[in-house]
Amino acid sequence: MKSIPLILMGCGGVGRQLLQHIVSCRDIHALNYGVRLRVVGVADSKSLLSVPDIFTTELDDHSVDEICRLKSNGSSLSSLTSYGDYQVFSNSETITNITEVASHLVRSTGLAVVDCSASSDTIGILQKVAEMNGCIVLANKKPLTSSMEDYDKLVLHPRRLRHESTVGAGLPVIMSINRLLSSGDTIHRIVGSLSVEDGKPLSQVVKTAKALGYTEPDPRDDLGGMDVARKALIVARLLGQRLELDSIKVESLYPAEMGPNAMSVEDFLANGVSQLDNSLADRVEKAASNGNVLRYVCVIEGSRCEVGIQELPKNSALGRLRGSDNVLEVYSRCYSEQPLIIQGAGAGNDTTAAGVLADILDLQDLFT
Amino acid sequence: MKSIPLILMGCGGVGRQLLQHIVSCRDIHALNYGVRLRVVGVADSKSLLSVPDIFTTELDDHSVDEICRLKSNGSSLSSLTSYGDYQVFSNSETITNITEVASHLVRSTGLAVVDCSASSDTIGILQKVAEMNGCIVLANKKPLTSSMEDYDKLVLHPRRLRHESTVGAGLPVIMSINRLLSSGDTIHRIVGSLSVEDGKPLSQVVKTAKALGYTEPDPRDDLGGMDVARKALIVARLLGQRLELDSIKVESLYPAEMGPNAMSVEDFLANGVSQLDNSLADRVEKAASNGNVLRYVCVIEGSRCEVGIQELPKNSALGRLRGSDNVLEVYSRCYSEQPLIIQGAGAGNDTTAAGVLADILDLQDLFT
Repeated sequence: MKSIPLILMGCGGVGRQLLQHIVSCRDIHALNYGVRLRVVGVADSKSLLSVPDIFTTELDDHSVDEICRLKSNGSSLSSLTSYGDYQVFSNSETITNITEVASHLVRSTGLAVVDCSASSDTIGILQKVAEMNGCIVLANKKPLTSSMEDYDKLVLHPRRLRHESTVGAGLPVIMSINRLLSSGDTIHRIVGSLSVEDGKPLSQVVKTAKALGYTEPDPRDDLGGMDVARKALIVARLLGQRLELDSIKVESLYPAEMGPNAMSVEDFLANGVSQLDNSLADRVEKAASNGNVLRYVCVIEGSRCEVGIQELPKNSALGRLRGSDNVLEVYSRCYSEQPLIIQGAGAGNDTTAAGVLADILDLQDLFT
Repeated sequence: MKSIPLILMGCGGVGRQLLQHIVSCRDIHALNYGVRLRVVGVADSKSLLSVPDIFTTELDDHSVDEICRLKSNGSSLSSLTSYGDYQVFSNSETITNITEVASHLVRSTGLAVVDCSASSDTIGILQKVAEMNGCIVLANKKPLTSSMEDYDKLVLHPRRLRHESTVGAGLPVIMSINRLLSSGDTIHRIVGSLSVEDGKPLSQVVKTAKALGYTEPDPRDDLGGMDVARKALIVARLLGQRLELDSIKVESLYPAEMGPNAMSVEDFLANGVSQLDNSLADRVEKAASNGNVLRYVCVIEGSRCEVGIQELPKNSALGRLRGSDNVLEVYSRCYSEQPLIIQGAGAGNDTTAAGVLADILDLQDLFT
């Protein structure tokens, strides 16, 4: 049985869902692939819980349940102090210990470090793992949207890095683009609707999405366009564009006076979004008279990378989008008149965690 | 530099396009992946052209051009008898020599055998390669749609087999389905429009497609549904359904009296298709009155696998399909209300060969 040792960073909704998928898929993975995922460490923002013997033991199913229960209640792993035979390192020890565990494993059994957090602080660890020739799987966009200098260190060994769930949750976007690139296809233009807005009144969309756990903690992260901008940057960099995040032209869906510095999250949800509805209504009407709809999209074309509202034909793939579906259109040499279209649920813990799990399994040939 | 030795079977349009892509992508592959594709043998239906030293030499770019020129003129590789330092084996020697070359390489440098033919006779070689732990890349559907007994031997080592271009040319269909499966997602239903018909008068579609090289040599292979049936079977088997080709319910687009046993290709193209237009016209009209269109689709749901004409809403992804685009809708636990949709050019030598090339590159972690 081939074994893939894992350290998971991030115990939010996606991380917990991933742990649960790992447990529920044990039999499928053993039977169909002869592979066993062996979780040796789990870290939240403050602590690392580590198994007694990183070479041979793993987090058992019961402990996975316990961790998920604890974290969904909002508690910290550090509250465990010790847990059975497991060790819990906290605060300044955490990073040191993740790195130490990683260095031992990478040299022997191999290791995949999985980042399901939304933290800007994991990149240091990830760069060390890359440097050591370990594998990295990301749902976290932040490491890939850091400075080009930091990005280059992260992507040192491209075949040891996967990040499908950084763009469009589990949609096979990254993998499809990588296939085009490896086949020598020339990508001219990518247009994506990678947010959860769908033409309904913005207020309704935001409130629904937040309730379903589909938005960033502050929905203005979505509406400000930064979440879409990060996704666009990840795709642009995949195409070889050496862009920085602040060079992307981002049209925010909300004005400055409703920004996070000016208005609280609560006030925004209670009042701000309804005001936004009204100001967009005129634009929606004008578009409709042209047979168009408004969509919040990103466009990547050469070195041009822009995010904002565009009028699009009602009958285009992007125009017909419903619900929280994302859609990506890729125009290339092979897909010139009609683009390659990938469409489907672009958010949600289940599909995001599923994308991460598929990425882990796709690394199996690098393990013994 | 990592080296991937290749034997190519099939010098038709796809095989020649693949050789040309391999040559034109050398720099991209070297620069971006540190990989070199090393073609050591090329076979058509009768002969194998082999390099002098399979361990160290390769088919050079000039020879690739020469082979492509020769084959596009309809000549046989056997007409080369010898060519520079290359050896040409013909007829009964061919299979023996492919197998011998394969067995030497698999044990040392590794090997990928690539089948871009449309032959029913390659499966023996492919099974031997699988047994020897070599890699296999298929554009040819026939090996995957053989008896389950033969199929099982072929897919002995699933991670050493790729076949993206057997379904929907270069569309990332197989990879996407495999990702869902490896993540433990439960696939309920797959609906695909995997042929080149698009609602235009059938006669026009067939003639255009044939002129562009998009159809099987006898367009009735497409219209009879067998091509779509093979694709559907490949997908069904990927989902674990142990079905035989003859158990798939296939509604033919042409009646028995226009079949290959009753009418010649020429007569069919000249007269038969126009008659088909008329008989379908009523059905098209009735569908239109319901706000529907006719589409030739396959449906895979559990053990049910059917191919035929369905009335579909004008506004569905399948309903809106244009040109030679294929579309696949996957309904699963993660994609339940809105399916995962993959859509784009589903035929053509360029995109088919590109899919094969992407598959080859995806095997690189199995080589040194």
